[in-house]
Amino acid sequence: MATQKLLSDDEVRRHPQAWAVFEDIRATRQSDFINNFWRALANDPPQLQRVWEQLKQVMMTEGELSPLVRELIYIAVSTANGCSYCIHSHTAAARAKGMTDGQHAELLAVIGMAAQTNALVTALQVPVDAAFQVGAA
Amino acid sequence: MATQKLLSDDEVRRHPQAWAVFEDIRATRQSDFINNFWRALANDPPQLQRVWEQLKQVMMTEGELSPLVRELIYIAVSTANGCSYCIHSHTAAARAKGMTDGQHAELLAVIGMAAQTNALVTALQVPVDAAFQVGAA
Amino acid sequence: MATQKLLSDDEVRRHPQAWAVFEDIRATRQSDFINNFWRALANDPPQLQRVWEQLKQVMMTEGELSPLVRELIYIAVSTANGCSYCIHSHTAAARAKGMTDGQHAELLAVIGMAAQTNALVTALQVPVDAAFQVGAA
Amino acid sequence: MATQKLLSDDEVRRHPQAWAVFEDIRATRQSDFINNFWRALANDPPQLQRVWEQLKQVMMTEGELSPLVRELIYIAVSTANGCSYCIHSHTAAARAKGMTDGQHAELLAVIGMAAQTNALVTALQVPVDAAFQVGAA
Amino acid sequence: MATQKLLSDDEVRRHPQAWAVFEDIRATRQSDFINNFWRALANDPPQLQRVWEQLKQVMMTEGELSPLVRELIYIAVSTANGCSYCIHSHTAAARAKGMTDGQHAELLAVIGMAAQTNALVTALQVPVDAAFQVGAA
Amino acid sequence: MATQKLLSDDEVRRHPQAWAVFEDIRATRQSDFINNFWRALANDPPQLQRVWEQLKQVMMTEGELSPLVRELIYIAVSTANGCSYCIHSHTAAARAKGMTDGQHAELLAVIGMAAQTNALVTALQVPVDAAFQVGAA
Repeated sequence: MATQKLLSDDEVRRHPQAWAVFEDIRATRQSDFINNFWRALANDPPQLQRVWEQLKQVMMTEGELSPLVRELIYIAVSTANGCSYCIHSHTAAARAKGMTDGQHAELLAVIGMAAQTNALVTALQVPVDAAFQVGAA
Repeated sequence: MATQKLLSDDEVRRHPQAWAVFEDIRATRQSDFINNFWRALANDPPQLQRVWEQLKQVMMTEGELSPLVRELIYIAVSTANGCSYCIHSHTAAARAKGMTDGQHAELLAVIGMAAQTNALVTALQVPVDAAFQVGAA
Repeated sequence: MATQKLLSDDEVRRHPQAWAVFEDIRATRQSDFINNFWRALANDPPQLQRVWEQLKQVMMTEGELSPLVRELIYIAVSTANGCSYCIHSHTAAARAKGMTDGQHAELLAVIGMAAQTNALVTALQVPVDAAFQVGAA
Repeated sequence: MATQKLLSDDEVRRHPQAWAVFEDIRATRQSDFINNFWRALANDPPQLQRVWEQLKQVMMTEGELSPLVRELIYIAVSTANGCSYCIHSHTAAARAKGMTDGQHAELLAVIGMAAQTNALVTALQVPVDAAFQVGAA
Repeated sequence: MATQKLLSDDEVRRHPQAWAVFEDIRATRQSDFINNFWRALANDPPQLQRVWEQLKQVMMTEGELSPLVRELIYIAVSTANGCSYCIHSHTAAARAKGMTDGQHAELLAVIGMAAQTNALVTALQVPVDAAFQVGAA
Repeated sequence: MATQKLLSDDEVRRHPQAWAVFEDIRATRQSDFINNFWRALANDPPQLQRVWEQLKQVMMTEGELSPLVRELIYIAVSTANGCSYCIHSHTAAARAKGMTDGQHAELLAVIGMAAQTNALVTALQVPVDAAFQVGAA
C-alpha cells in the first residue's frame, strides 16, 4: 500500500491543477488509463505538474535518441536503483514502443555485465586512466 | 590507489593465461592501450579471462542493440551505481563509438529523470498496476 | 516472509535480555504495540538491545533537531536505500509526531530533487569546488 | 575531471538561455560565485534551465519545511547515494543557512542509524506491519 | 510477477541449450528443484548458460574460501543491493550449507555495522589514510 | 577533504570522553596509529564512543565467524555501498588479519557475481520461490 492515497478521478477533479495534468496525460497518451504513480503524485498538484512536464520534455520530445532507447536507459537506471514499480512500468512502456524479446535480453545482459564490473572496479579501487579524461586523444 | 597492484606488461607476461587475454584485448580493439581495469584484474588470470570473454559476448557481438546503445546503458547503470571509473571509461567508449554531444545530453536528462521518479515512487511506495504485469493487454 | 522468525511475546519472554528490551519499548512508547522489526531482531538479544539503545539515543534524546526532523531524515535515507519496511514505519512515525501533508509533500520533492541532481553530478563527474572545502570562506 | 567541459563565463555567454540562468543564479544568491555543477550543466542549456527552475521551486520557496531542514534532507539523500560533490556542496549550503556543529552531528547520527536499520531490515526481509499501512488507526 | 515468463520444464525442453543447463543444474545440485531465477533466465539460453557456468566457477569450485563463507558474502552484497529474491535464496543456500543461527546473527550484525560506518564515512567525506594504500607498511 | 575537521591528538585530548576512546583504540589495537575515520568522528564524542563500542562488540568479540570472515563481509558491504575509504581501510584490515591474495581474488569474484545476479533478478522481478521461505522443507 502506498504512503499516500491513490486518488480516484473524482478526487483529482476537485483540484483544477491536478485535473488539468490528468487530462493532458490522457490526451498525450491517447488512452484513458492513468497509472498509480500519477494517482499518488496527485496529492501534491504542483509536484504532479512539474514531474509530468519534465517527463514530456525528457521522454517525449524529438531528439537524437529514439523513444525506445530512452526507455531502455530508464529501465537500466530503475534496475540499479531497485525500483520495482519503475521496472514494471517502463518495461511495459518499452514493449509498447516496440522492444523485442531479443532487445530485452540484450538490455539485461548489459545491465548484469555493468553491475558486475562496477562492483569489481569499486572493490579494486581502480584509478581513472589519463586517457579517459575529457579532451584526451 | 588500487587495492591490488596494477600490473605492467612485463608482470602480466609471466602468466600465460593473463598474457593471452592482453593479446586478445589488443587484437580485438586494434590498439596497444590497455586500461587500468584489466591491469588490476590481471592479478587473477582466470577472473580476467572470464570477465573479458563475457564482455566480448555482451558488448561486442552482433545483436539487436547497437554497440553505442549498449554503451549508453552501461553509463546509465554505472552512474546509478556511483562507479566513477566506469563512468569515465564508458563515456570515453561511447564517444569513440560516435556518441554526439546531443546524445550525451539526452542520456543525462533521462538518467536524472529516472533517478528522480525512482525516488518518488519509492518514497510513495506505489503498488504496481495490474496493467503492467506480463501478459496484460 | 522474513529470513528469521518473527517472535511472539511468549517466545521473547524466554530470553530475559530480549524481554527487558520489549518491556522498555512498551514503556518508552507508552503503547503495547511492538512492530515486526523488533520481533525479528529478538532472535539475537544482544543485537536487539544494542540497536534499541542506539535508537533511543539517536532518535529520542533532547537535541538540536526536533524528533520530527529526525524522522524526515530517516525517511530520506530509507528511500535512497530502497527499504520499503523502513519507509512505511518511519512515515507512520513521522505522522504520529505531527508531520502534515504539506511537510510530506515537501519532503518528497526534496528527495526527488536530490536524487536527480545526485545522478546528474555523478554522470558528469563534477569536481568539488574549492569553495566547498571545510574552512573555505 | 568532469565528463563534460566546465564552461567559463565567456563560454556560457554565447548561449542566451544558459546565460540568463547564470544571471538568475547570481541575482538569486546575491553572489558572483557559480559552482561547477552549473558550469557542467551549461553544456545543455534547456536542462540547465529546467534543473535550476526546479531547484528554486523545491528548495527556495516558502513552505512548511525551513530551508535548513530541506538542506539536511538533501545531505541525507546525497550521502545514501554516495555523491561526494553533493555532500560537499549541500553541507556548505547548510552551514551558510545556519547549521550548527550540533545539528550536523545529529544529522550524521540519524543517517548512520538509518543506514544500519535499513540494512538489518533488508537482510531480515521484515514484512510491513498492518499498522503502518495508510489509513490504519 | 516477473517481467519475463517463468518457463516450465516443457517450455525449456524446446531449447536444447537451455535444457542442457537445466539438466546440469539438476545433476550438480542432486535435486529436481529448479528455482525461479533460472526459469526466468531461460528465456535467453546463451545468457542462462553463461550465468550458470560462471556461478559454478565462482561458487562451487575448490578454493581458499569455504562454500559457506562465499554464501555469507553473497548475502551481504545482496542486502546492500536490496535484492529480496537474492537474500531469500542465498539465505536458504547458506542454511543448506550449514549456517548456524549464531553465524546468521553475526553476519547481520556485521552488515548493519558496515552500512552504518559506510554512511558516516561518506557523510564525513573522510580522506583515505596513506597507511591504507597498497604497499604501505 | 572531510566535511568536518580531522582532529589531532592535541585537539582530542581536550575532550575527556573522546580522548578515552582514543586511548582504548590504541590499547585494543596495540598500535599508536589512529586512522582518519576516528579523527573525524571525534568531533562528536558520544557518537565516537558509541560507534567504537559497537565496533568492538561486532568485530572483535569471540564468535562463530572468524575476524577475517567478518572483514570479508565488511568489504563486500562497503563495495556494494561504494565507500572508497571503507574499502581501503577494511582491505588493509583483512590483510593484517591474514587475508591471502587467493582469498582476496575469490572475495572479488563473489562480489562481482552477486552484483550481476542481483541486477538480473531485479530487472526480471523474479518472485521468491515458496521453497526459500523460512520453515520450508
